[in-house]
Amino acid sequence: MSDAFFHPVSGMELPRFAGVPSFMRLPQVPLDDPRCDAVQVGIIGVPWDSGTTNRPGPRHGPRQLRDMSTMIRAENGATGVRPFEMVNCADLGDVGPNPADIIDSMSRITAFFEQVIAKDIMPLTAGGDHLSSLPILRALGAKAPLGMIHFDSHTDLFHSYFGGTMYTHGTPFRRAVEEGLLDPKRIVQIGIRGTAYDSEDIDFAKSTGIRIIRIEEFFDRGVADVMAEAREIVGDGDTYVSYDIDFVDPTFAPGTGTPEVGGPNSFQALQVVRELEGVNIIGADLVEVSPPFDASGGTAFLGVSIMFELLCVMARRIAT
Amino acid sequence: MSDAFFHPVSGMELPRFAGVPSFMRLPQVPLDDPRCDAVQVGIIGVPWDSGTTNRPGPRHGPRQLRDMSTMIRAENGATGVRPFEMVNCADLGDVGPNPADIIDSMSRITAFFEQVIAKDIMPLTAGGDHLSSLPILRALGAKAPLGMIHFDSHTDLFHSYFGGTMYTHGTPFRRAVEEGLLDPKRIVQIGIRGTAYDSEDIDFAKSTGIRIIRIEEFFDRGVADVMAEAREIVGDGDTYVSYDIDFVDPTFAPGTGTPEVGGPNSFQALQVVRELEGVNIIGADLVEVSPPFDASGGTAFLGVSIMFELLCVMARRIAT
Amino acid sequence: MSDAFFHPVSGMELPRFAGVPSFMRLPQVPLDDPRCDAVQVGIIGVPWDSGTTNRPGPRHGPRQLRDMSTMIRAENGATGVRPFEMVNCADLGDVGPNPADIIDSMSRITAFFEQVIAKDIMPLTAGGDHLSSLPILRALGAKAPLGMIHFDSHTDLFHSYFGGTMYTHGTPFRRAVEEGLLDPKRIVQIGIRGTAYDSEDIDFAKSTGIRIIRIEEFFDRGVADVMAEAREIVGDGDTYVSYDIDFVDPTFAPGTGTPEVGGPNSFQALQVVRELEGVNIIGADLVEVSPPFDASGGTAFLGVSIMFELLCVMARRIAT
Amino acid sequence: MSDAFFHPVSGMELPRFAGVPSFMRLPQVPLDDPRCDAVQVGIIGVPWDSGTTNRPGPRHGPRQLRDMSTMIRAENGATGVRPFEMVNCADLGDVGPNPADIIDSMSRITAFFEQVIAKDIMPLTAGGDHLSSLPILRALGAKAPLGMIHFDSHTDLFHSYFGGTMYTHGTPFRRAVEEGLLDPKRIVQIGIRGTAYDSEDIDFAKSTGIRIIRIEEFFDRGVADVMAEAREIVGDGDTYVSYDIDFVDPTFAPGTGTPEVGGPNSFQALQVVRELEGVNIIGADLVEVSPPFDASGGTAFLGVSIMFELLCVMARRIAT
Amino acid sequence: MSDAFFHPVSGMELPRFAGVPSFMRLPQVPLDDPRCDAVQVGIIGVPWDSGTTNRPGPRHGPRQLRDMSTMIRAENGATGVRPFEMVNCADLGDVGPNPADIIDSMSRITAFFEQVIAKDIMPLTAGGDHLSSLPILRALGAKAPLGMIHFDSHTDLFHSYFGGTMYTHGTPFRRAVEEGLLDPKRIVQIGIRGTAYDSEDIDFAKSTGIRIIRIEEFFDRGVADVMAEAREIVGDGDTYVSYDIDFVDPTFAPGTGTPEVGGPNSFQALQVVRELEGVNIIGADLVEVSPPFDASGGTAFLGVSIMFELLCVMARRIAT
Amino acid sequence: MSDAFFHPVSGMELPRFAGVPSFMRLPQVPLDDPRCDAVQVGIIGVPWDSGTTNRPGPRHGPRQLRDMSTMIRAENGATGVRPFEMVNCADLGDVGPNPADIIDSMSRITAFFEQVIAKDIMPLTAGGDHLSSLPILRALGAKAPLGMIHFDSHTDLFHSYFGGTMYTHGTPFRRAVEEGLLDPKRIVQIGIRGTAYDSEDIDFAKSTGIRIIRIEEFFDRGVADVMAEAREIVGDGDTYVSYDIDFVDPTFAPGTGTPEVGGPNSFQALQVVRELEGVNIIGADLVEVSPPFDASGGTAFLGVSIMFELLCVMARRIAT
Repeated sequence: MSDAFFHPVSGMELPRFAGVPSFMRLPQVPLDDPRCDAVQVGIIGVPWDSGTTNRPGPRHGPRQLRDMSTMIRAENGATGVRPFEMVNCADLGDVGPNPADIIDSMSRITAFFEQVIAKDIMPLTAGGDHLSSLPILRALGAKAPLGMIHFDSHTDLFHSYFGGTMYTHGTPFRRAVEEGLLDPKRIVQIGIRGTAYDSEDIDFAKSTGIRIIRIEEFFDRGVADVMAEAREIVGDGDTYVSYDIDFVDPTFAPGTGTPEVGGPNSFQALQVVRELEGVNIIGADLVEVSPPFDASGGTAFLGVSIMFELLCVMARRIAT
Repeated sequence: MSDAFFHPVSGMELPRFAGVPSFMRLPQVPLDDPRCDAVQVGIIGVPWDSGTTNRPGPRHGPRQLRDMSTMIRAENGATGVRPFEMVNCADLGDVGPNPADIIDSMSRITAFFEQVIAKDIMPLTAGGDHLSSLPILRALGAKAPLGMIHFDSHTDLFHSYFGGTMYTHGTPFRRAVEEGLLDPKRIVQIGIRGTAYDSEDIDFAKSTGIRIIRIEEFFDRGVADVMAEAREIVGDGDTYVSYDIDFVDPTFAPGTGTPEVGGPNSFQALQVVRELEGVNIIGADLVEVSPPFDASGGTAFLGVSIMFELLCVMARRIAT
Repeated sequence: MSDAFFHPVSGMELPRFAGVPSFMRLPQVPLDDPRCDAVQVGIIGVPWDSGTTNRPGPRHGPRQLRDMSTMIRAENGATGVRPFEMVNCADLGDVGPNPADIIDSMSRITAFFEQVIAKDIMPLTAGGDHLSSLPILRALGAKAPLGMIHFDSHTDLFHSYFGGTMYTHGTPFRRAVEEGLLDPKRIVQIGIRGTAYDSEDIDFAKSTGIRIIRIEEFFDRGVADVMAEAREIVGDGDTYVSYDIDFVDPTFAPGTGTPEVGGPNSFQALQVVRELEGVNIIGADLVEVSPPFDASGGTAFLGVSIMFELLCVMARRIAT
Repeated sequence: MSDAFFHPVSGMELPRFAGVPSFMRLPQVPLDDPRCDAVQVGIIGVPWDSGTTNRPGPRHGPRQLRDMSTMIRAENGATGVRPFEMVNCADLGDVGPNPADIIDSMSRITAFFEQVIAKDIMPLTAGGDHLSSLPILRALGAKAPLGMIHFDSHTDLFHSYFGGTMYTHGTPFRRAVEEGLLDPKRIVQIGIRGTAYDSEDIDFAKSTGIRIIRIEEFFDRGVADVMAEAREIVGDGDTYVSYDIDFVDPTFAPGTGTPEVGGPNSFQALQVVRELEGVNIIGADLVEVSPPFDASGGTAFLGVSIMFELLCVMARRIAT
Repeated sequence: MSDAFFHPVSGMELPRFAGVPSFMRLPQVPLDDPRCDAVQVGIIGVPWDSGTTNRPGPRHGPRQLRDMSTMIRAENGATGVRPFEMVNCADLGDVGPNPADIIDSMSRITAFFEQVIAKDIMPLTAGGDHLSSLPILRALGAKAPLGMIHFDSHTDLFHSYFGGTMYTHGTPFRRAVEEGLLDPKRIVQIGIRGTAYDSEDIDFAKSTGIRIIRIEEFFDRGVADVMAEAREIVGDGDTYVSYDIDFVDPTFAPGTGTPEVGGPNSFQALQVVRELEGVNIIGADLVEVSPPFDASGGTAFLGVSIMFELLCVMARRIAT
Repeated sequence: MSDAFFHPVSGMELPRFAGVPSFMRLPQVPLDDPRCDAVQVGIIGVPWDSGTTNRPGPRHGPRQLRDMSTMIRAENGATGVRPFEMVNCADLGDVGPNPADIIDSMSRITAFFEQVIAKDIMPLTAGGDHLSSLPILRALGAKAPLGMIHFDSHTDLFHSYFGGTMYTHGTPFRRAVEEGLLDPKRIVQIGIRGTAYDSEDIDFAKSTGIRIIRIEEFFDRGVADVMAEAREIVGDGDTYVSYDIDFVDPTFAPGTGTPEVGGPNSFQALQVVRELEGVNIIGADLVEVSPPFDASGGTAFLGVSIMFELLCVMARRIAT
């Protein structure tokens, strides 16, 4: 049972359009606040997109996600889970990046998440572009390689860009595997599609044992079957979940920089998360929401709906 | 066979972008016009959203619905129905609300619909937020409680808001049941989903016998099966159909104030109406279209497409 | 004093967002309606843009202008004129064009305006692209050449386009002068600016006596001085006023197909019309409002504000 | 000299797009927080628009204003004032309205501002529609009638709407004068323009001594001259400043519900506030910012720029 | 194996947002360029919409399609096809239409495509409204009638519009059959839906042997089954593929002039093209993309994704 | 007299919405094309924004500027200059940046401009964020320090950001002065305004002799007077012109990342360039156009209108 301090403000008290928008109307608890020690799930923004090779914008993601998140209520209608009553949740604020220095930014992010782990807080992150996941994994996967369930239309397994640039939003998981942060045999990538430069990423996946489930297979087999395999791949070990909003069809999620047509709809976007039940999740992120490409906020609303589903899975794992 | 006066202007004569936009290019016939006595189906706007607890806008719904409705032609391609030739249809204009007084507005709406019924006109209403349905039902359900097929992502069965406010767009059907306008045993609510404050509304439904079909069940069983049950629930008695545009997934219908992700697509949005064939429909509404959240009018175009399907069902019931 | 039948619906009775949107909430009186004989100023839509050589859209102009016109009230705050009480005004509807046949469309428009004149109604037209003015002038200028005060960023005096096409929105006034509908010595064009293909239009103006006041001269001399000259040029004779919305700076009026930066602001856009007081105006148009390039309607609202100022000038001329 | 606790986060530390958006990146200090006692200027949101008779939306104003306010830096470049170093400023949060009950909402607002005054905090409010000013004035003007400098395109002095409704955004200052909260002889209204229903408001102004400076006079005389008269009218007494964003031309501020074309530009919008230097200001508001009509936030950015200018004037009056 | 000159610029060399946007970053090779003789597939723009009877805009289609096409990479992830390495592809530029003369424009288009065929280049066209297909077919079908697989929500088989106008975007295939350019027994139309004026088009189809597969049948049978029938209908003979973007549901493709709700999603939009494998395709078009109704470019991105799938099918037929 | 090869395609031949959009419809001549030797003014895109500390987007600037530039015609209506007939102009394409490596990108840009200068081509650059100017100046100012006329709302003279990052869009001219590329005594910055962090930049300007003309002074003195001083400051020496689109008021130019309200209007935006006549201009740039913040392209159209005015000044200087 959670502490009432960590309960969100109800829309029945303060209408949902009112108030300073923290994530899901949770209390804002910076890392140096003494109350932070009681937090069990921390929602964190990483407003950063310097690794973007195409259309930028995810640095604005956390703010729009917070804004739309005030429409989230207390209970998951589909599963009945009431996460805020099960565990102490809080908005830990944003990691301050250096938009003009990639290396410096990665250090700042890793340092922040090291503190989060040190306090035994499970992090749920709102990116940022997908390079954000690398410095997070440097904190979370420091002790032992993690498994990963990865929803995306791209593998993000490329070696480098533009003649040798190693850190972009197309390379984080190549680096993470190379750095021993992820165990490739316990990685599954779901939803891959679109045109490709070449198959260098696929070759890397094959050679290391990463399982790729393309969108055609996803639609053929259905959510339940695919997710059963995903759960089997990661097994009982510690597992990270990385959710790129471009996994979803760009009509449902136009606010992203590198869309690929022909993806899942919004119901499937939620279903795959509900099917994470039972996974030994130790952290998750939702990345690549780019408000400049969806000023109306529909993508962000879908994004926070996905984050809420992730939170329900995390709360259940902690509480049980 | 309908009177030619009541036929819409053809796009072959006057291009569809031309002309003052009445609903479906029908003649405008105010209640005090003598021709009104010949009207069989009246399309009515209720430009009102004072009951909105979240993001307002449906007061602009009727105008944008009229605008987009000029793209509707004479024949339902799927069913072959040509409603304007079967019954006399007309645009009865808008009920003038008082945007700064909820009680006054409800009185005005009820008074308008009492006149409509007195003239034996079957009303097809374009809202307005969902509180609009209550004053309409006060006219239509005055003699005996009605059955209702209700498409929505919310139950709108709450007791009150903000510490006791009884009239909001989240409470109309609670009031309608309490006032004896609807027979709860003949109510079915389809498409319910999203996060919830609590289960007060669900408890009320259970205790009174209202049948709720959540979206997960809807997708599992399919349109035909769900609608067969819906027809069974309402039976042969007089039945009202209330269609909240937020029943549809917000990607297909972004122009609404309280969206919930993971809903039906546009084809299913039409299918459910076609499956109303055989229901003893005595009136219908399409509510919660909010143009400020979809300036391009896509939501309104879907809305009038739904209204046209409703009209076809209504015309067929009158004509047979 | 006008007949109360011709008074607009007040926003105090029916809120301005409600009701089927006729121009300025006036009664809709088609040409074949007997009440049309009492009309003194008729507002007419010409939803047509087949003469557009660049970006199309003005065919949607009349509808959006009607929509935004419901925000216009009864009195001109600046001049105190209450036009609807001075003369009988009505919305005469749209001329139905043939979007795929320029010659046919021009015939339809001229025929419509011949009827308008026959009924002694002064026309205030909402275009349509600027080619609309030519078939109108064929009706209005049939007996004797008219003077014209023309607000625009282009002269629309070109001979032909694309290797000999004579009817486009860049040629109407060349044709009108050639056809003897306008007296070039009584034409003044105000606001001309932007880049040019060549000076063929300017040469024509010079050789025929058309006075061009470029935007630099307009800003140097100021509204009052320029308009005094304009009044002098047209003198006491019958004068048409043609107002292309691209006269105004595109920041104030983005919804148009061929914008030119560096134009007047919205206050000056109204001032020039107020300075028409005393001109023997016999008709006017406001053209080139293109809703697809300004979905929000700001351009149309400025457009109807200009139309209201024109109406005030027309009403005063009729009433005095 | 202010307490460092009350200094905004610098964009050099945390980029301006990062972090939970409080007003001008100030600390969030609720009324029941002990630190609130040290606050000298409190910025407060009133997310409420139930008094809107036309197009709603200002309930979303405070959130968008907070969002855009993170682009405001520490120093006023034009005047050199650094307000956050002069006085303790804080974001006091939003007053929670009841969107479905006008009377209840007004009580809540007045109660909130009574507490603000009791703590000797000078309030700078972000509306909300213009009815918001009435419950604020009920707190601020409770002891003695205030003077008021009012920037607007409307007088908001009407008696009632829709057949007797007394509380709308068109009536607040009529009520405030009737209730003795404002001294009509010390009220000046600047920027009035647009079409009018009738002159009932102007008549009231004349009969009570309220000075109205229409936009034509404003442009003729210029900012400095007009503002000199304004300062003279309010004299040395306690003075409230109410700034309706529709004072500014709608091209510069499209995000508002009842625009009137032909208003001041953005530079003049700031200049008028700088000319408040020397006025005995005791509170101010910026109202009618309606995000649904300007999703891009340009209106809100102008709005917070105006609020920052107001803050500079308030800080200087407190500090000197 | 293709000539390296005809390879697109890689995004790894020049980021995808950089460079002058030719179709799929291919070299621009005008018809009079000697290198044109080596081209095997030519991508051609027809920026023309004068045949549009409803909402115009497709004249802007080719430019926005080129813009979004720079996000297309070298390999089809689903099928493994790398078209640019199989055949020489080039951007042949736009056919210059005469926006104010339909007959002249059709002559220009036919003349252009006659040259294309004379050089033995297979054309892949980006429209333009659907009337564009007629002058193209006049070149391609000059020798013998072609078969056609036609994806659309409309049949475009009407006789005439507006009292006898023969050339509009609703009549091209009626004309093409009449002129002997298409063999009606080898035409299949897929996706037809929406409201209809009358059944004149359907009657023509029936009487000539054109097969219409309505959307209800499409959803019932599924993509594979429907496309198997389509392949059987066209058989081994030369076949043209015409793809109207309004085949796709308007939520996925809002940027079009005459949308009909209830269509296929983006995955199905691609699937139907992949199922063209084996068809003796001799040319294809993608028409009716209208940027003014989708400024964000999502429709165009879906459009070029469809064009890329078409290109893969064409490349495979040429290469094998 | 220029070579006809370098003349833009006329809109009378190919409508302005047609064709692949090069800058001002000029021929595309890459640096390695032999025709490049004849080019006198080269228009170059620098699609790069990695130095942006706030809202990114200018990497998309060159493409949207090219798109809107097809509306530019042959002659400057205000000055009569026909630049394309005076000097050989061409679109030299884009410099390919490395979006994930600032240092690498700067090297690429400098290398490109060194080639441009080596061919004696005067460069007119479309950015890109303002950091783009630094690597350009490293090429242009390599031999001797240049004078600079700089239009902007910010000085861009800061030392560093985020704790020591030296290369951002807020530091280029500090670096350029330090590196001896610019002579501070021959720098004038016009239009400076908005809030400030501190006065570190102003102090640097004062200490080195850079002249800052704030917006208040600009409005007080007027364009002609200010520009006379600017011409005097730079004198006869080689002078670079750097034009940040945020010099213009954000209502006229919303598509930019760091707007400041209260700036010049669009007419003044052009006037200041016309007043450069007589300056010994050796290159110019127009930077910070950010399409994601102005999807409609109005900012870009103003931007290319400014570029055309710059081109006229450059052509005149070369030709005389």
